[in-house]
Amino acid sequence: MAQTLTDRKDVQFVLFDHLNIEELTKGKKFEDLNKKTFEMVISEARSLATKEMLPTSADADQEGCLFEGGDVKVPESFHRVYDQIKKGEWIAVADDLEVGGQGMPEVISLAVLEMFHASNSALAGFPMLGHGAAKLVEIFGTEQMKKLFLQKMYSGQWGGTMLLTEPNAGSDVGALETTATKNSDGTYSVQGNKIFISGGEHDLTENIIHPVLARIEGAPKGTAGISLFIVPKIWVNDDGSLGEANDVICTGIEEKIGLHGSPTCSLTLGGKGNCRGFLLGGENKGIRVMFHMMNEARLAVAIQALGLASSAYLYSVNYARERLQGKSLTGAKDSPQVPIIQHPDVRRMLLWMKAQVEGNRSMNFYTAFCMDKVAITENEEEKEYLEDLIGFLTPICKAYTSEKSCQVCGQAIQVHGGYGACRDYPVEQLLRDCKITTIYEGTTGIQAMDLLGRKIGMKQGKPFKSLIKEIGKVTAAARKIPDLKDLAGRLDETLTSLTMTTMQLAQAAATPKVLEAFAHACPLLEVFGDVILAWMLLWRASAASTKLDKILGDADDEKKKTKINKNKDAAYYHGQIQTARYFINSVLPGTIGKMNAISNIEAAPVKITDAGFGG
Amino acid sequence: MAQTLTDRKDVQFVLFDHLNIEELTKGKKFEDLNKKTFEMVISEARSLATKEMLPTSADADQEGCLFEGGDVKVPESFHRVYDQIKKGEWIAVADDLEVGGQGMPEVISLAVLEMFHASNSALAGFPMLGHGAAKLVEIFGTEQMKKLFLQKMYSGQWGGTMLLTEPNAGSDVGALETTATKNSDGTYSVQGNKIFISGGEHDLTENIIHPVLARIEGAPKGTAGISLFIVPKIWVNDDGSLGEANDVICTGIEEKIGLHGSPTCSLTLGGKGNCRGFLLGGENKGIRVMFHMMNEARLAVAIQALGLASSAYLYSVNYARERLQGKSLTGAKDSPQVPIIQHPDVRRMLLWMKAQVEGNRSMNFYTAFCMDKVAITENEEEKEYLEDLIGFLTPICKAYTSEKSCQVCGQAIQVHGGYGACRDYPVEQLLRDCKITTIYEGTTGIQAMDLLGRKIGMKQGKPFKSLIKEIGKVTAAARKIPDLKDLAGRLDETLTSLTMTTMQLAQAAATPKVLEAFAHACPLLEVFGDVILAWMLLWRASAASTKLDKILGDADDEKKKTKINKNKDAAYYHGQIQTARYFINSVLPGTIGKMNAISNIEAAPVKITDAGFGG
Repeated sequence: MAQTLTDRKDVQFVLFDHLNIEELTKGKKFEDLNKKTFEMVISEARSLATKEMLPTSADADQEGCLFEGGDVKVPESFHRVYDQIKKGEWIAVADDLEVGGQGMPEVISLAVLEMFHASNSALAGFPMLGHGAAKLVEIFGTEQMKKLFLQKMYSGQWGGTMLLTEPNAGSDVGALETTATKNSDGTYSVQGNKIFISGGEHDLTENIIHPVLARIEGAPKGTAGISLFIVPKIWVNDDGSLGEANDVICTGIEEKIGLHGSPTCSLTLGGKGNCRGFLLGGENKGIRVMFHMMNEARLAVAIQALGLASSAYLYSVNYARERLQGKSLTGAKDSPQVPIIQHPDVRRMLLWMKAQVEGNRSMNFYTAFCMDKVAITENEEEKEYLEDLIGFLTPICKAYTSEKSCQVCGQAIQVHGGYGACRDYPVEQLLRDCKITTIYEGTTGIQAMDLLGRKIGMKQGKPFKSLIKEIGKVTAAARKIPDLKDLAGRLDETLTSLTMTTMQLAQAAATPKVLEAFAHACPLLEVFGDVILAWMLLWRASAASTKLDKILGDADDEKKKTKINKNKDAAYYHGQIQTARYFINSVLPGTIGKMNAISNIEAAPVKITDAGFGG
Repeated sequence: MAQTLTDRKDVQFVLFDHLNIEELTKGKKFEDLNKKTFEMVISEARSLATKEMLPTSADADQEGCLFEGGDVKVPESFHRVYDQIKKGEWIAVADDLEVGGQGMPEVISLAVLEMFHASNSALAGFPMLGHGAAKLVEIFGTEQMKKLFLQKMYSGQWGGTMLLTEPNAGSDVGALETTATKNSDGTYSVQGNKIFISGGEHDLTENIIHPVLARIEGAPKGTAGISLFIVPKIWVNDDGSLGEANDVICTGIEEKIGLHGSPTCSLTLGGKGNCRGFLLGGENKGIRVMFHMMNEARLAVAIQALGLASSAYLYSVNYARERLQGKSLTGAKDSPQVPIIQHPDVRRMLLWMKAQVEGNRSMNFYTAFCMDKVAITENEEEKEYLEDLIGFLTPICKAYTSEKSCQVCGQAIQVHGGYGACRDYPVEQLLRDCKITTIYEGTTGIQAMDLLGRKIGMKQGKPFKSLIKEIGKVTAAARKIPDLKDLAGRLDETLTSLTMTTMQLAQAAATPKVLEAFAHACPLLEVFGDVILAWMLLWRASAASTKLDKILGDADDEKKKTKINKNKDAAYYHGQIQTARYFINSVLPGTIGKMNAISNIEAAPVKITDAGFGG
């Protein structure tokens, strides 16, 4: 049967040939694991995603969530499947065994998450949110809090959220108005209104644990005065039993463009003065605590977008193979209709989508792999080096993957023609579900500010230099492969341009031209993403080239061609090389043009007056 | 009140300052018209669009169309507004007075259509479709047919459609299977199934006139054997009265991503053997007849997309002016929240949207203006020159405007943040409504094949050279304006690259590398669009510069700055110059990069095997 979620062979290739994650098993943390275990986990996740999660996705999109009198009902079909997610212990894949996790590497957890989102992103959000909230408790909670919450959250018995956004505090978190007052028993009374809360209220779990950002009375203004509280929907007694309902009221859910099975809630806390919570991580330490979650959440959103894009791509490939329309451009006059995959423009669309899906998969998996390497290394210098890379890559993963994934979903509709816009085909839902990923957990603009304003200049540019160094390793190796030499050369040239452009813009950002500079922050993030994709695709091509050579051996050109056409593995590896060729020769020159554009640091976006925008 | 459809000042500027359409009134056809009449028509259309069409748009999106037992009900609110469209005689704005039209130039008709689509694209489709069908009757019909149909169609009493697509014949029109057999009375019996028929069945009009593509028995295969028939939903007797229902059955409507108020129908013709039609334009001449409509329809779809994008842009500007979030990057630590329009990244997004909306408006209006000039010139050489330009520009208008408009709508959601994804705000509907414009009336890929395969090589490249010549006129003039000299220089350089890239790809398309060449047809169309946009924006800036100089006079720099900030006209003209600066300095360098990418004529999209795509 045609695949529709994530390409089995490709996931296998990234993990074991391209990144070679088996090396993790040399570390103490993963010493009991091996390739076979990894494969088994992924295979089981694929089975759950394909057989259970996928079949409820389209119906849930139609059915949506129901809000009535403060209660929220998720699509009926979600209950059974969520139970299976719980039973399969899919919520804490990469968490320690002691807290109820499966102890897998992050990169395996990401591969699982990608499949879940590819199959049913609205449903996949629930375990993801629960996990994020639990992680905060695990890292910052007291022993008592861990005892009360952790097992129930990581097992999925209780759900979780993140209460950050308020009507007047979205991207500007520091502007929030929710307050907290210390009670005599050490708990805090929380009061305020939160909006856009994914899974803020629902009937999937018996309890929901809300991490809530609020300001303790008298705390400093802005982000420096924000604290984080754990506010359960239903109070948890000291013995772990459920007490009375906490004063957290859902006042409505949003009608959205997509993710209809995921309720986006408005919550009123302490409307009756009875909302209690535990302080987590200390007074005024809320932003630090939240950012721990945010970085995880940002990678998770990237993977969410990627899963949707991966599915959109696979549906498109399948459709293009089956849909007959038009004759071959080189065919005779009376030749029959051909599958549209034979048309060069359709191939271009598919190859662009493939490059984006596979390149972004590599970028995100690589970032998670770096996290895993941090977890096993005892070399402090290596640890810092890896953490620098992770910090640098995170905003790019979040912003670039989500933006490009939306484009991939849009392109999928295009491949399907008129059918693509119809609900009978799955791709229009994928686009709608994907749209929010460029916004939540920090918009693309916020990520770009993080990159230009913090990450690039950090430690005198050390993280940036580490990235360039890592890319350089791959181009140096690729230069020795005859088929990839030209691509390596082109990428090296692009790296030089990237360094120049980055320096120029970073310097401008440190002068009175700061506004002009930041008007080009998003384009800068995009060219970083392009270059990283080229790096990843060249890296893939290098690994594939070795594999392909082994299959083809010393055969003559004609025989090689036959093998590439007949042997599925050979076709895959050959496809990796073509994908790199396409991206580096047909996309990367445009990236250099975009760098030239950035280097102009055109001031028009700043100079135009507000009235000049018209309207 | 803030504008939300098309910017009044900008439409005025394009018509009277940038294109100077008043010159049309020197021609015989428009000698009775003047600027004031043009302005009045546009002002009345704006009033209808704002007060009547817009208020029914969001509800219609929610309500959708109802299919029941072969009948289709459009949203209830459409009936009253459609009546007003009829009463205002808005269906045949640019048609001759003798056939019931208003006798306006096409460019005025386009300005009206843009506002209609900006306000309510689902509803605006009905008069547009009716008009297209009527035009075919006007041009190709017999006197008797004109007498029977024309007045009723142009007045909107009867609706119209275009029955082209079949399940196995979409982009590949020649593959259609609907048949026609001549009856003894001269009519034809038509039999077949058509899908994706916009307005194929509805309750807005008492009759619907379907132009139907079908093959007369024994006709040649492919497009050469296609004829066009006029098939009324209800038979029209020789005296003009309505007869019995024709055998045209609606079998269902599509659930779509957008345009919910516009029914997309499946129709079965002659299921009971009783579907009759009139031949139009002669046997086997169907494609020629249809293409007449297609060119009009392609420009109309471009304008539809543009209207949606224009509205998305204006909503975004308004939102950005009102939404407080974050501090100024250059503000003090305790400075208050500012409207997000003050953030450089938001300004960049808005300026990019502005450049796209205004540039595409100019491109499409210019193309219509050329049509109007054709209608008044008696110089055959000039006529051919203009027709060459129109033919060359049409696929670019259709494909580039629709693609970029979808991006503008997506960007509008981004400017709105989380609110943008919610139904309470209008922009998510605009994106959904816009999506189909890159597909229907010929996908972007089809337009790109038309450009590379037909238009570029046509007449030894004469139309292409004419375009370059026209752009050269604007850069030559702009070189004399100190503020625009650098922009003109950059555009001239880009023109040189464009010519080289085009020649290279066109030459490759004429060799055995034809597939490789066509894999880059879409990117080529996109760079053409970019260059034309730069041309239009520079042209606008040149006209604006003269106007601005007049307002500013000899004041010193400080006073000029004050005037630009305080005088709304000055701000507008200054904004035109900034828009050109932004596009030519921050976007066009990327276009040159894309040209370099095309010039590589990378073969990977062709070389990758079908299996290599995975899945």
